[in-house]
Amino acid sequence: MSNAVPDNVFNNPTLYQGTYLEFLGFRLTTWREGFARLEMPVRGVHRNTVGFLHGGVISSLLDIAGAVAGNHGVSKEMVSVTVNLNVNFIAPHRSDSVIAEGELIRMTNTLFFAQARLLDPKDNRLCATATGTYKRQPRKQQIDNS
Amino acid sequence: MSNAVPDNVFNNPTLYQGTYLEFLGFRLTTWREGFARLEMPVRGVHRNTVGFLHGGVISSLLDIAGAVAGNHGVSKEMVSVTVNLNVNFIAPHRSDSVIAEGELIRMTNTLFFAQARLLDPKDNRLCATATGTYKRQPRKQQIDNS
Amino acid sequence: MSNAVPDNVFNNPTLYQGTYLEFLGFRLTTWREGFARLEMPVRGVHRNTVGFLHGGVISSLLDIAGAVAGNHGVSKEMVSVTVNLNVNFIAPHRSDSVIAEGELIRMTNTLFFAQARLLDPKDNRLCATATGTYKRQPRKQQIDNS
Amino acid sequence: MSNAVPDNVFNNPTLYQGTYLEFLGFRLTTWREGFARLEMPVRGVHRNTVGFLHGGVISSLLDIAGAVAGNHGVSKEMVSVTVNLNVNFIAPHRSDSVIAEGELIRMTNTLFFAQARLLDPKDNRLCATATGTYKRQPRKQQIDNS
Repeated sequence: MSNAVPDNVFNNPTLYQGTYLEFLGFRLTTWREGFARLEMPVRGVHRNTVGFLHGGVISSLLDIAGAVAGNHGVSKEMVSVTVNLNVNFIAPHRSDSVIAEGELIRMTNTLFFAQARLLDPKDNRLCATATGTYKRQPRKQQIDNS
Repeated sequence: MSNAVPDNVFNNPTLYQGTYLEFLGFRLTTWREGFARLEMPVRGVHRNTVGFLHGGVISSLLDIAGAVAGNHGVSKEMVSVTVNLNVNFIAPHRSDSVIAEGELIRMTNTLFFAQARLLDPKDNRLCATATGTYKRQPRKQQIDNS
Repeated sequence: MSNAVPDNVFNNPTLYQGTYLEFLGFRLTTWREGFARLEMPVRGVHRNTVGFLHGGVISSLLDIAGAVAGNHGVSKEMVSVTVNLNVNFIAPHRSDSVIAEGELIRMTNTLFFAQARLLDPKDNRLCATATGTYKRQPRKQQIDNS
Repeated sequence: MSNAVPDNVFNNPTLYQGTYLEFLGFRLTTWREGFARLEMPVRGVHRNTVGFLHGGVISSLLDIAGAVAGNHGVSKEMVSVTVNLNVNFIAPHRSDSVIAEGELIRMTNTLFFAQARLLDPKDNRLCATATGTYKRQPRKQQIDNS
């Protein structure tokens, strides 16, 4: 059970009810120090006009996977604030579920760096990659001062 | 009326009903050669758990603004396919509407480059910038071969 | 003379003798709050094997232009440390001189954001654009603690 | 000898004499399908004014490592032309040699995607990462038409 996911904001729908996280509807299926995996059933509202997973949803999942990878064990007090996100769209995603994996690259005093990748679980195809730079801020301060 | 927006997919809800575009709910308020402006009322489902416009929605709007800026006059036949999107998150967005502007930088035979910026119309604050690299593909081919 | 460039590290060769800055050989021809322009004669050692300005030199000039744009008035005490640089290569550069312009987008407590563009002065062609995220650190601390 | 590097432009100084490649002075020590490793002795002219490997040189090596990773077996006829390069600067590099590794992520008809990382071999520290998008063009066409 080394990958068991503790109680957290992402698995506690009352904490994100009515937000974009609820709209996405992913679950955090693996979370350990420096790593996070999200799994999401794809619905029509996640797709573009030609039927593929929308690039904006892809960017969202990669952003979140990287942010969460750098927030293990502190997510009740801290928020990961994205500074820069760079996404490479490699192949379209067509199936009815999607996986996003985030990995922490390095944590410094003020910033952390993460990479993420988006997979189609149907054929394990790599559809997109991203790198992100994030600040880690106290959850309360983020609300007060941003 | 130089900025009058012709009939197009973005202003024709029946063309994107049930897709991510409908979820976002923006209107294309200016569209001319090399430039596009989107305006979107912000709803709760666009926000994160601390009440700001979610970074994924910001990325989505910037991606779309750049894509549309490079697609003026050909959007019925052609699709802009994002290859790379790089987003800088500069300041949080808090108000109840948002503007995204895209500008074409250069069109080559195979690719185009665009930049985009996201503004809070309440105080005209610059909240995020992006640059994108896109392919332009026939709409039909994109569906058949991707 | 509003654009007159004050005495500074970039126009004082003894301060960068033997470094990569000397190899590049640019001059800082405009420097004001939030803006910097570099001009550089292109030599063979700046080119790739097919005779164009090397992408690495292009990245270097854009990185420096953005860094300097955010450092006006404080360059004796502070160093701009690049966190993220994103470069779009739009057209090859062929002529014997090059201009890089950097512009500050926003300064926060801990970071600043800049954009930069590289021009061929011969035909004023836009050859590349970049956005950068930078930290501003005391020059001494940067040496001691990095 | 599975990693033996065949005769190629990078190990044949007469092919890049007087160019930026000669200035850098790296060797291609591993080259196989989808992977390339460069090793470079660091000289003073590669450093910034505070003694670290200059960010422009870091970007150059990462750009080249990605480009070469996607060019295995075809480098005599084809050139990798960088479209987008995104670099994350994670830690300063101080020692007297540096390694850059590039890995091909995916090759499409018109583009390829690669990632790269820069290491300090002294302590195996990860100093920077990058992702790149490249076009692959016939060497001759690149000279004629660009």
